[in-house]
Amino acid sequence: MSTTTSPPGPSARSTVKRIPERASYDPEVVHTILDEGYVCHIGFVIDCSPVVIPSLYARDGDSVLIHGSPASRTLRTAKAEGVEICLTVTLVDGFVIARSGFHHSMNYRSVVIFGNAVPITVDEERARALDHLVDTLVPGQGGGLRPMPRNELKGTTGLRLPSTEASAKVRSGGPVDDAADYDLPIWAGVIPVSTTYGPAIPDPEFKHDLPVPDNIANYRRTG
Amino acid sequence: MSTTTSPPGPSARSTVKRIPERASYDPEVVHTILDEGYVCHIGFVIDCSPVVIPSLYARDGDSVLIHGSPASRTLRTAKAEGVEICLTVTLVDGFVIARSGFHHSMNYRSVVIFGNAVPITVDEERARALDHLVDTLVPGQGGGLRPMPRNELKGTTGLRLPSTEASAKVRSGGPVDDAADYDLPIWAGVIPVSTTYGPAIPDPEFKHDLPVPDNIANYRRTG
Repeated sequence: MSTTTSPPGPSARSTVKRIPERASYDPEVVHTILDEGYVCHIGFVIDCSPVVIPSLYARDGDSVLIHGSPASRTLRTAKAEGVEICLTVTLVDGFVIARSGFHHSMNYRSVVIFGNAVPITVDEERARALDHLVDTLVPGQGGGLRPMPRNELKGTTGLRLPSTEASAKVRSGGPVDDAADYDLPIWAGVIPVSTTYGPAIPDPEFKHDLPVPDNIANYRRTG
Repeated sequence: MSTTTSPPGPSARSTVKRIPERASYDPEVVHTILDEGYVCHIGFVIDCSPVVIPSLYARDGDSVLIHGSPASRTLRTAKAEGVEICLTVTLVDGFVIARSGFHHSMNYRSVVIFGNAVPITVDEERARALDHLVDTLVPGQGGGLRPMPRNELKGTTGLRLPSTEASAKVRSGGPVDDAADYDLPIWAGVIPVSTTYGPAIPDPEFKHDLPVPDNIANYRRTG
């Protein structure tokens, strides 16, 4: 047991082994990546076999909230002690074009979190978690919506995964070619990859003539 | 054993249980999604625990090729019989804005493949697999590159995952709200999400004055 208050180092499974110089365990780096992303891939084990499903998520302080209902039965029916998962978020920033196939690469920022996803059993806490999920996906969205009735809340599940065992991995910049290859007359560089949002498409079932709200018309995500 | 030549139905683990009407087992639907994507999330089991890592991939007929080197040691050192994985690809098409938080959703297309990833041990086959990975990520790129020397090929690993146990899941269109909620004066609709590429950034280490090749300047992905 450590007697200091400094944060513990990464656990064995959280330590990045492959190209460790790209790794970071700084919560700020981890949080920035989690805040820019919105889709995670959740891995868990069923009958000794791996299963990976995509899900929306939202960071909430030092943990990540997952909406259990769209997720697998394994997550929805998790017991109080939780279910062991690995939650991974990947943001792609570019394709790295090198002078050889071997050195082609991808610029990306990713976070891998190991831990137990624990169901949120207290109704009020779960209602807040679901609001936070919506408000994180579309900031400013929570306030103006039709409130959640009791039966809807009862029928939804939310899970919380602490982000204590998290690692980030980042690759950025241009290609790193073999020294001799820089003389070759082959184009090299980066194709940037970015995500764009909008313009918003109104529901064809609209009964009202409402303008697109600002938070939707000017939707952006910042890391 | 079936005596017909029609394709078998989905296996138990490949059968989509949650909102099955969004599922498809049609190889054409699966292939179209796999061909538009380029990043997959690979789940496997280490010491009974789930691990999920992102990786580039390329579909090759009825299987998916994975470049083993950037992946985990577990994949790189897979034995001849392969390692059991779950490979998931998710394309996000939009955020579905509903009149209640409960009905907020995401438009997406995803593919989940269960199977054993088998290392490609024959050198010529592996060289072709690596070329195919580069050429699938950036079409037209393979031909003009510096060829792969023997030692580079020896140092790389490639894995092949059959896509026989694959399922696709697709959500599209506008929000589906509770009947009574359509009367509410709340904006609803879809914020489309798309990926954009470029403009290409030349390597600052360039020794030549080369124009950006067409396949990179006009980079696009079609499903």
